Amino acid sequence: MAAIVSAGSTKYGKHDEKGARELFAEAFAEALEGARNLDPKRDIGAVFIGQMGSEYEYQAHSGSWAADYAGIPRTHAARVESACASGSTALRIALAGILSGQYDTVLVGGVEKMRNRGTGEVTLYLGEAGDFPMEIWNGLTFPGLFALMATAYMNRYGAKEEHLAKVAVKNHKHASMNPKAQYPQEITLEQALSSRVVAWPLKLYDCSPITDGASVVILTRPELAKKYTDTPVYITGFGHSTDYLGVYEREDMTWLEGARRASEAAYRMANVDVGDVDLFEVHDCFTIAEILLYEALGIARRGEGYKIIDEGLTYYDSKIPVNVSGGLKAKGHPVGATGVGQIYEIWLHLTERAGRRQVKGAEVGVTHNMGGSGASHNVFVLER
Amino acid sequence: MAAIVSAGSTKYGKHDEKGARELFAEAFAEALEGARNLDPKRDIGAVFIGQMGSEYEYQAHSGSWAADYAGIPRTHAARVESACASGSTALRIALAGILSGQYDTVLVGGVEKMRNRGTGEVTLYLGEAGDFPMEIWNGLTFPGLFALMATAYMNRYGAKEEHLAKVAVKNHKHASMNPKAQYPQEITLEQALSSRVVAWPLKLYDCSPITDGASVVILTRPELAKKYTDTPVYITGFGHSTDYLGVYEREDMTWLEGARRASEAAYRMANVDVGDVDLFEVHDCFTIAEILLYEALGIARRGEGYKIIDEGLTYYDSKIPVNVSGGLKAKGHPVGATGVGQIYEIWLHLTERAGRRQVKGAEVGVTHNMGGSGASHNVFVLER
Repeated sequence: MAAIVSAGSTKYGKHDEKGARELFAEAFAEALEGARNLDPKRDIGAVFIGQMGSEYEYQAHSGSWAADYAGIPRTHAARVESACASGSTALRIALAGILSGQYDTVLVGGVEKMRNRGTGEVTLYLGEAGDFPMEIWNGLTFPGLFALMATAYMNRYGAKEEHLAKVAVKNHKHASMNPKAQYPQEITLEQALSSRVVAWPLKLYDCSPITDGASVVILTRPELAKKYTDTPVYITGFGHSTDYLGVYEREDMTWLEGARRASEAAYRMANVDVGDVDLFEVHDCFTIAEILLYEALGIARRGEGYKIIDEGLTYYDSKIPVNVSGGLKAKGHPVGATGVGQIYEIWLHLTERAGRRQVKGAEVGVTHNMGGSGASHNVFVLER
Repeated sequence: MAAIVSAGSTKYGKHDEKGARELFAEAFAEALEGARNLDPKRDIGAVFIGQMGSEYEYQAHSGSWAADYAGIPRTHAARVESACASGSTALRIALAGILSGQYDTVLVGGVEKMRNRGTGEVTLYLGEAGDFPMEIWNGLTFPGLFALMATAYMNRYGAKEEHLAKVAVKNHKHASMNPKAQYPQEITLEQALSSRVVAWPLKLYDCSPITDGASVVILTRPELAKKYTDTPVYITGFGHSTDYLGVYEREDMTWLEGARRASEAAYRMANVDVGDVDLFEVHDCFTIAEILLYEALGIARRGEGYKIIDEGLTYYDSKIPVNVSGGLKAKGHPVGATGVGQIYEIWLHLTERAGRRQVKGAEVGVTHNMGGSGASHNVFVLER
């Protein structure tokens, strides 16, 4: 369908000295370095960029500045926004551009510059990802929304706070091997459990941080891939689904139906079974989300997601590695960049570039990126 | 390539009682009413919505709420943003979706809710469409940017303030026949010239207003069109180009190179000559823009755009009707909706629904929608 010929990413974290466009340019420079013979002006037909909040630095029209900063000011471009799924949505739109025959090669970026705003302000902006007038206006925040999901889940299935905390411990362990992670320190279960409560049962270590960062991938038609690299990674399936914007509208707040639909469509298109997948990057904006996604993506049975983290099965060197990058939790969550950063991580593994955290012999990887409290889901299957 | 089977639009203006989603739903209801046998759940494969500023009402993730409010909460959707070209960019992305084989029928919307914010705040937000850190941060506003273009143009080619004012007089005359226009009153040349200066030479009547509104079109594969309507309108060509984000980066601020590129590509794809076009809707965010666009789109020769407004050639009943809707100037400019509203207007004419302002026997129409001060341009050729 399409091949990834190169990718790049800034370190995720705090970049006081750089704006969104400088972060994007830094990630693009890494990708360009890795793409043999690629001349942006000649070869790149379009730029699609995922970004949630132009208001973070009073700069919209990101497609145009991204094209400009990639050195191709007169091209095709657009910014795409589906809240925290903006990055993967840009990739989906880019794929449509290739499949439609319009473009041979497309630059896909994701970026967010958040740390220049205060926590309260960012919390308010992130609230725009949910049903603002119904949820946020009435006092809910994103930690609050996911806390509701967590309590409902714990009540129904018997999961405990420890299970949530174990997701954080795992993802911090993974991040400790990722030089681009925002919080690469390992933590203990006790630290996680005794960190301050944000919205019970979610504590500080159950929540992804506020992050600056950018990631890009360069995508081309499969038949052109070898021109630019010896190690192409192929997108063999993708799936997408929206869902009701407000959590209150859904039948069951312990189940991410959009993720089920998106992942089933992606597996079917790629003709892979969930058991064939060597590693997953999933949208752990809060620890409970990773557990719910084990279930929606078919990694665990419904109601049993917390058991597989309890058994340690999703560590990078175990049976079903999940969020080997550190995840949103510890690698960081620059919202518009996240979905592209997940692709970057899988690309590293499938091209044997992941260093100490390399999942050995990885052949098939899957990404899942979510918008809001589950109102947008994009799933990609990548194979080498 | 694709067929428009129906379209809808709210009145443009001030809608205190409605949010963006209610405006969108109202426009969608009109479109649905006009599409025979269309069952959204069964037939619509995706929703793409153009919106510039989620911050106008603290609600991002518009693809998901739009799908939800269209009654198809579990579908494919995304919000697309290219500043004031967001609506036409959503249409471009929707076309790619159809051409890629992913979708048969797509709902394209544009929406903006601006009047609930103060003029100063809106001016600041609109500044995000330009190069904020370089231009707006240093004191330029959008009226200021277009005033620079106007003075440079007047200085080089000998155009006068009267020529700018004549664009406003024409577009208000057109708006007086459009029941959905925000400012349907006719104005005199003297009124326009004596209105208060915003940024010389631009006066109040040289500037498009701040507007709430939504417009939608329903798009399908040409071979399916007759299922939904007896009067399909076909998109036979489209073109797009970005340009440098900042005016200061461009070689010549009196020339919209992106508009030239986009229109040439669109004419070529549709195999039409500019002389074949029966009416144009162009992006007259300021009166000077309409004059510059006469030139970039090939309606007038370079440096002679002001002469054709002087001669009255672009009135609805003259040789080359431009902005028969009233244009952004008088119909209104709900920024994300504008590009879709232009399509709506051409669709009205090509299906003989434009009432008193109907361009008689119109067969070919062209829309041009611009982002920022010229950093994004989308041109579509529509034929019946």
